[in-house]
Amino acid sequence: MPVAPPLTRGPADQVAVRRTNLGVVLRHLRHGGPSSRAGVAAATGLNKATVSSLVGELVERGLLVERGALHRGTVGRPGQEVALAGGGTAGVGVEVNVGYVAAVVLDLGGRVVHAARTPLDVPRAGVDAALDEAARLVDGACAAAAAAGARPVGATVAVPGLVEQAEGRVAYAPNLRWADVPVLDALDRRLGGSVRRGLPLGVDNEANLAALAEAAVAGPDGAAHLLHLTGEVGVGAGLVVDGRLLRGAAGFGGEVGHMPLDPAGDLCGCGRRGCWETLVGLAALLRAAADPGDPVRDPSLDLEARLALLARRADAGDARTAEALARVGTALGVGASILVNVLNPRLVVLGGYFAALGEHLMPPLLDELRVRVVAPGAGGARVVRSTLGLTAAARGGAQVALDAVLDDPTLVTAPAGSGTVLTLDEEDHR
Amino acid sequence: MPVAPPLTRGPADQVAVRRTNLGVVLRHLRHGGPSSRAGVAAATGLNKATVSSLVGELVERGLLVERGALHRGTVGRPGQEVALAGGGTAGVGVEVNVGYVAAVVLDLGGRVVHAARTPLDVPRAGVDAALDEAARLVDGACAAAAAAGARPVGATVAVPGLVEQAEGRVAYAPNLRWADVPVLDALDRRLGGSVRRGLPLGVDNEANLAALAEAAVAGPDGAAHLLHLTGEVGVGAGLVVDGRLLRGAAGFGGEVGHMPLDPAGDLCGCGRRGCWETLVGLAALLRAAADPGDPVRDPSLDLEARLALLARRADAGDARTAEALARVGTALGVGASILVNVLNPRLVVLGGYFAALGEHLMPPLLDELRVRVVAPGAGGARVVRSTLGLTAAARGGAQVALDAVLDDPTLVTAPAGSGTVLTLDEEDHR
Repeated sequence: MPVAPPLTRGPADQVAVRRTNLGVVLRHLRHGGPSSRAGVAAATGLNKATVSSLVGELVERGLLVERGALHRGTVGRPGQEVALAGGGTAGVGVEVNVGYVAAVVLDLGGRVVHAARTPLDVPRAGVDAALDEAARLVDGACAAAAAAGARPVGATVAVPGLVEQAEGRVAYAPNLRWADVPVLDALDRRLGGSVRRGLPLGVDNEANLAALAEAAVAGPDGAAHLLHLTGEVGVGAGLVVDGRLLRGAAGFGGEVGHMPLDPAGDLCGCGRRGCWETLVGLAALLRAAADPGDPVRDPSLDLEARLALLARRADAGDARTAEALARVGTALGVGASILVNVLNPRLVVLGGYFAALGEHLMPPLLDELRVRVVAPGAGGARVVRSTLGLTAAARGGAQVALDAVLDDPTLVTAPAGSGTVLTLDEEDHR
Repeated sequence: MPVAPPLTRGPADQVAVRRTNLGVVLRHLRHGGPSSRAGVAAATGLNKATVSSLVGELVERGLLVERGALHRGTVGRPGQEVALAGGGTAGVGVEVNVGYVAAVVLDLGGRVVHAARTPLDVPRAGVDAALDEAARLVDGACAAAAAAGARPVGATVAVPGLVEQAEGRVAYAPNLRWADVPVLDALDRRLGGSVRRGLPLGVDNEANLAALAEAAVAGPDGAAHLLHLTGEVGVGAGLVVDGRLLRGAAGFGGEVGHMPLDPAGDLCGCGRRGCWETLVGLAALLRAAADPGDPVRDPSLDLEARLALLARRADAGDARTAEALARVGTALGVGASILVNVLNPRLVVLGGYFAALGEHLMPPLLDELRVRVVAPGAGGARVVRSTLGLTAAARGGAQVALDAVLDDPTLVTAPAGSGTVLTLDEEDHR
């Protein structure tokens, strides 16, 4: 049997082996596309009888569908094809950030089924108002999933701060002004016991989740070694190393905003001087680009519109805007060079406002990487702008909820009203 | 069968499965200590017949020994105990660094069988002289291993620079003044075709290898998330994340010496200002601590003696020495805080001269971590001084050579003169 429980756990646990193998088949069909049972067996190394039994269970659980016969000139009776029932299962991601609360519904096939975003001044509105809105968006997301024919299987909340995952608690999120907030308990209460209703909840750092979402769309080349940098009020980083999120010993890894780059620099919110955040945070850019009273500095206007205005000014040759962007791009490169030297990523993805203004930030950033990264050619790192926009973190949250099902497909029960789907002629395909 | 080849490779490859299982048994006995075959089976999840066959092969290859019967009140016939033949197999590690070339022989049981060190001004002596000395030390190490009854199974060279492992080449080692040096080919030639003689060679970054050696002695708590910082002419870092070395996409990860900490700082060898190396490299300390002509700045004297002299001056209350150490300790903490924030290690190990002067560098370093690491309590990181001294990198190199055998015990052939060791009563222990 090709898949086994960890070796330290003692004799094989057949239930665990089957659970793992269900996930192996499901992941294979998700990434490889539709296939015959024989094709799944060949690709996974599982024997055909096992594959037939696993496929039967996954069909019954509504995660796979059987479809039309294959006619590819094969000798003998044509086999039936199995495919991911991608639209039947969905993950929910919710992001609570400084200026908004957002939700995304992603189905198992990777399609965004629903997205919603509520502007909210979270630091001023307070914890309760933000969580009220998050709960409302989760409810809306579940309703939207159901309307699209997809069962929501879990929801993950993204927060810009230090998260204690096991406790479902945000230890510290300075830009939200949150400290020691039991997010999951509070959300579960608002959702009327969502865990009991079969919607497990999770909470994770926003930059981690955004990095996972970027890795999922990066393609095989960049996915294994990826550095995701998000420009917002602060700077968030999500690090993918050897294909896995770098969380560190206690889950606090990836904190980059307070890298001390200049002892004579501006005072930071943290009380020290010259932190990276003071050089490349949104406030630094806006202050350098415009005087108070200028619309780009008006927090009541939509951020995307203000960034678009800045880009137009730079394109039109406005000297102050151009200089502000050049200065931020250089500082972005100085800080990024530290991370590229330490982590040697294949892909650096710029998110948040760095993506929106990437066209202008990129040239000075690349100049700095060129001279400051010790390995030749910046160690092979490519820098790209995120294409996921402000949905990246919520999308990563939805992915994490779906990953739980890929790890253990038995989390999903058979859809109501479904009969047994194991067909009598299943032997034919072995 | 509990262990399998990667799922993407198609149907199980029985040879690969057996190779992996041989390694599983060997690693288990190495870490867990002597055990009966039944104990190995219970701990690994492998069935008893398989364990008996694997143990037989490992005994035949001289990697395990059978010893006295176990009498622990077990019912039935007492089983025989199998144990690692730790002394029979050895790895060789060689370090080429700025002021010396060194070698260590480590046996499979973790004992240092031999250590040698030749002072050499490597940047001035040049590539050929350094590699001549490295070859001489490898030969001496192999002879010492043989004299101790251990077969050397591989040698790994540690170099402070960017290493292209697959090509066996050092791309760039600024402090050695090496660029594009084909270390393995050159060493193999000097050793008369060592690969042909059954001694595979490898080359790796010195800080990586030192980090592996530190992780091996760190105990389970610190081994999985460890940051090793070595103070020499430059600053080396080896990063262990989730139990594995962080190498990055192209093997260039862990480069920390040129973190730009002060735009108004001293000029660095790299051409920019305020790099971490200019603040905490050995030269910065010595310059701050003493005038030219002072013995601590005399490169012809042994470094350890000069560091001991500095420590004595600090202990005696010399103000200039104390101030220099405080300044370096603070700068060490400023830079380390960046790495602790990004990586969230459980253990920070100070090596090289940082270890030698750790008593004086530690208090200001810890102060900086306390205020600069965003996660409470420095994210749970403990800072300790390396106990391996200047042997860490060579020791890590020897470990890597041994790891190859643990991954694939079939690399080791049966010792000359050994008969078949599969005993006729092996069935009894299944």
